[in-house]
Amino acid sequence: MKALKERILRDGKCFEGGILKVDNFINHQMDPVLMKSMAVEFVRRFASTDINKVMTIEASGIAPAIMVGYLLELPVVFAKKKRPSTMENMLTTMVYSFTKDRSYEVCVSRDYLCPGDRVLFIDDFLANGNAAKGVIDLVQQAGAELVGMGFLIEKAFQHGGDYLRQQGIHVESLAIIESLENCEIKIRE
Amino acid sequence: MKALKERILRDGKCFEGGILKVDNFINHQMDPVLMKSMAVEFVRRFASTDINKVMTIEASGIAPAIMVGYLLELPVVFAKKKRPSTMENMLTTMVYSFTKDRSYEVCVSRDYLCPGDRVLFIDDFLANGNAAKGVIDLVQQAGAELVGMGFLIEKAFQHGGDYLRQQGIHVESLAIIESLENCEIKIRE
Repeated sequence: MKALKERILRDGKCFEGGILKVDNFINHQMDPVLMKSMAVEFVRRFASTDINKVMTIEASGIAPAIMVGYLLELPVVFAKKKRPSTMENMLTTMVYSFTKDRSYEVCVSRDYLCPGDRVLFIDDFLANGNAAKGVIDLVQQAGAELVGMGFLIEKAFQHGGDYLRQQGIHVESLAIIESLENCEIKIRE
Repeated sequence: MKALKERILRDGKCFEGGILKVDNFINHQMDPVLMKSMAVEFVRRFASTDINKVMTIEASGIAPAIMVGYLLELPVVFAKKKRPSTMENMLTTMVYSFTKDRSYEVCVSRDYLCPGDRVLFIDDFLANGNAAKGVIDLVQQAGAELVGMGFLIEKAFQHGGDYLRQQGIHVESLAIIESLENCEIKIRE
């Protein structure tokens, strides 16, 4: 997606260890007009998909997911990274974060991820795919069906996308980063 | 706001200790169409206000804030509850949560909360007002100006709204809960 690629090249910041920071327009400050355009692009790419629920993980996935849900007029569920004290009837899974070198629990209520749900998962980044694997686990536990996964930015060199596509999952990434070597951002054409 | 009040009465759940759960349409599953309608209502209520930035706190504030930012075509900054390892140039404040009986750090980058910014703060709940006080502190530290605070739901019996209005802050709450006594939801007309 042209507008996103241009924005990454303009405002993205590259750090040692394959880290791309997009705090200027996605992860801390957000550009809502770009967010809506990205949501429109997801709607286009998943146009032939029968979806009844959008799912994401807090916190950076919420903005793109709510925009997709708004355009499709579908409920949006965000999985939580901490088990809320007042929440019962939970599905949980563990996700290992390479960036933070620790595992965290991700949970969602069975009240909102249900048997028969046709789930489009939306998130900001696809890197190693560990969060995505956690989502696959939650969707399976719920007896729901994962009909697609959409990411704003995929880091191809961390191969989570390869894994997901090998599983036959319909994956769409709006910008694919080929490499961040020598802190130079190379985006797939 | 009529649609929100009706939804709270229909889908809100009341628990001992003044807890109102709206997991069905705000805090876990979100209704994006209602979220847009609530954002429109904020735009109306802050129509005479000169705003250049929308601010919120992760995670439940992000959805209403991004909708307000989208309608106003303004950047949205979400303060973070954990200091990111890769983030420098931070402003921080401590917020005490009555619900969880612990304090947590809230932080925002000086890159995105700047001197001269005219900030509209948007959040899901106003209860004791501790998070709001943290935001006031962050905005002051940044040398920015807080031009308004909008909340989806205010719990009047926890008096955070009284405090904020006494400070002369323009506060707008789309639904004001008078009481949750005996687990009965009483909403101000």
